[in-house]
Amino acid sequence: MREQIQHKIDFKTKPLQSLGILEEIALKIALIQQTISPVLESPTIVVFAGDHGITKEGVSAYPQEVTYQMVLNFLNGGAAINVFARQNGIELKIVDAGVNFDFMNVEGLISNKVAKGTKSFLTNSAMTSAETSSAIQIGRNLIADIIQKGCNVVGFGEMGIGNTSSASMLMHYVSKIPLADCVGRGTGLNDIQLANKIQILQKAKDFHGEIENGLEILTAFGGFEIAQMVGAFLQAFEDKVLILVDGFIASSAFMIAQMLAPEIINYALFCHLSNESGHKKMLDFLNAKPILSIGMRLGEGSGCAVVYPLIESSLAFLNEMASFESAQVSTKEK
Amino acid sequence: MREQIQHKIDFKTKPLQSLGILEEIALKIALIQQTISPVLESPTIVVFAGDHGITKEGVSAYPQEVTYQMVLNFLNGGAAINVFARQNGIELKIVDAGVNFDFMNVEGLISNKVAKGTKSFLTNSAMTSAETSSAIQIGRNLIADIIQKGCNVVGFGEMGIGNTSSASMLMHYVSKIPLADCVGRGTGLNDIQLANKIQILQKAKDFHGEIENGLEILTAFGGFEIAQMVGAFLQAFEDKVLILVDGFIASSAFMIAQMLAPEIINYALFCHLSNESGHKKMLDFLNAKPILSIGMRLGEGSGCAVVYPLIESSLAFLNEMASFESAQVSTKEK
Repeated sequence: MREQIQHKIDFKTKPLQSLGILEEIALKIALIQQTISPVLESPTIVVFAGDHGITKEGVSAYPQEVTYQMVLNFLNGGAAINVFARQNGIELKIVDAGVNFDFMNVEGLISNKVAKGTKSFLTNSAMTSAETSSAIQIGRNLIADIIQKGCNVVGFGEMGIGNTSSASMLMHYVSKIPLADCVGRGTGLNDIQLANKIQILQKAKDFHGEIENGLEILTAFGGFEIAQMVGAFLQAFEDKVLILVDGFIASSAFMIAQMLAPEIINYALFCHLSNESGHKKMLDFLNAKPILSIGMRLGEGSGCAVVYPLIESSLAFLNEMASFESAQVSTKEK
Repeated sequence: MREQIQHKIDFKTKPLQSLGILEEIALKIALIQQTISPVLESPTIVVFAGDHGITKEGVSAYPQEVTYQMVLNFLNGGAAINVFARQNGIELKIVDAGVNFDFMNVEGLISNKVAKGTKSFLTNSAMTSAETSSAIQIGRNLIADIIQKGCNVVGFGEMGIGNTSSASMLMHYVSKIPLADCVGRGTGLNDIQLANKIQILQKAKDFHGEIENGLEILTAFGGFEIAQMVGAFLQAFEDKVLILVDGFIASSAFMIAQMLAPEIINYALFCHLSNESGHKKMLDFLNAKPILSIGMRLGEGSGCAVVYPLIESSLAFLNEMASFESAQVSTKEK
């Protein structure tokens, strides 16, 4: 199958490999779908939102209430992810995975709350192992349902003030990359605030000590939105659909998923290199090549939504371009 | 106006600068259109095709006949640029600027042929100065007409076997970057062929000697598609519309246009970094930052077409996203 797909790519009316990454994307999707004429159906981005106990230590530039306020913004269609998903014909689903707010019955919100925010991992385990299992199962069920309705390409986003701190801890524990290299400015810390964030995360590391098991790392540092995303990744992999990985936090969830299912990398596209400073090393660790490097660092699945037309371009060329033969164009001189 | 636009960008519900290059694009377009709510109308890509006398020296991996064959492929809708333009709602115009072939009355082709290919610049001036003037004026007229019909964003592509050789000479003469750094593999030369190409271009340099004037450089090395593109760039600039610059050859035409109208850079977006080896240095010389770096090197305006949805994303966020105030989201803690 790989040879057939590569042959189809190489005999399009263009110099060999001249479409760069688009050719790699086309090959990957064709391999996932096991066809030389792959199609994407009902693209969907799920945004998981959750709060983090660690925010009370002053690790974020924004107050915790922004999590629920942004969830309401998502539901009202005013956030970046809404705009980009609308633009590119992507279905958007907003999930309360564990926001510290009573939404009551807000229309359009998927209420999958595990608890009202995690505990601070400075002095506690962020989650209990029961909460981790529950969150993963909830994420799995949601994605299984979406795929069952006909979607074969899913992207995941997140919203959670403080969640770059969790992501940094996951990255450090999974990759063993020095902690300071895993920590960045998040939504916009200044130098002093960044130094403080690193110090707090170092203390958290001292408190938790060594942890090797992926699920235990996830339990220790949270959060609920990350854990549900891990479940979502695993289910998408098992159902063999194309997975779009967004930025720093989504990639940290992916790292955990990959510990549990190493083959998942073959089903994933890494949408962009985030400006969050640890992301490059994280992607290098995963041996993953981002499609875009346009200085974004917003989360919400925004990178998945913005890159989506390029993924469509990759299939458009594969399915619609003429071959040298069909167009009667001369091939390369030897 | 710049302050007003920047304020609108900065008070969207997202961390400051978190949309990276998309924010820079939005600012640029808003400045071009002198409004905080810019819109793109009737996006159009014009592909200029021309042949090059230098091909007979063996500088290309493909035979010259591929130029006309690809023009027919464009007209039949089977090339990469057709696929990407269709995908992204971009009007496509195909221009015979100087192909060495009698197309007779092929439907859909704009017949603006200056001559049937340039002369080999190894031992001649590729064009006469009258041909250069004529080509520039033809390019200007075409774009003036397109803009007059309501288009405010134009991208330019090219097709011309051998035209990376012309582009390399233009680059070298305009930038004074060492010739070997300006020469790449084009459509796919191997090491020996590349060495041969460099040697031929060095001989051409010896033949032509010093040339400082932009139009004289263009006349010396051609080609007709590049000269028409120079005219097109200049007209688009004077009409104050957004200009999309594609890859290596389009950027070489842009270098000439910029010698004639230095402010044109403020109207241009550089769509992608081509895999053609001289392009990075060319963009550095222009002080231009490409949007995409996805390893493409196809020409045809394909980079303009593929990146177009990202440009639309930049205006979508500017025009559609909620502000912190309108969405009642808390701003950053001090």
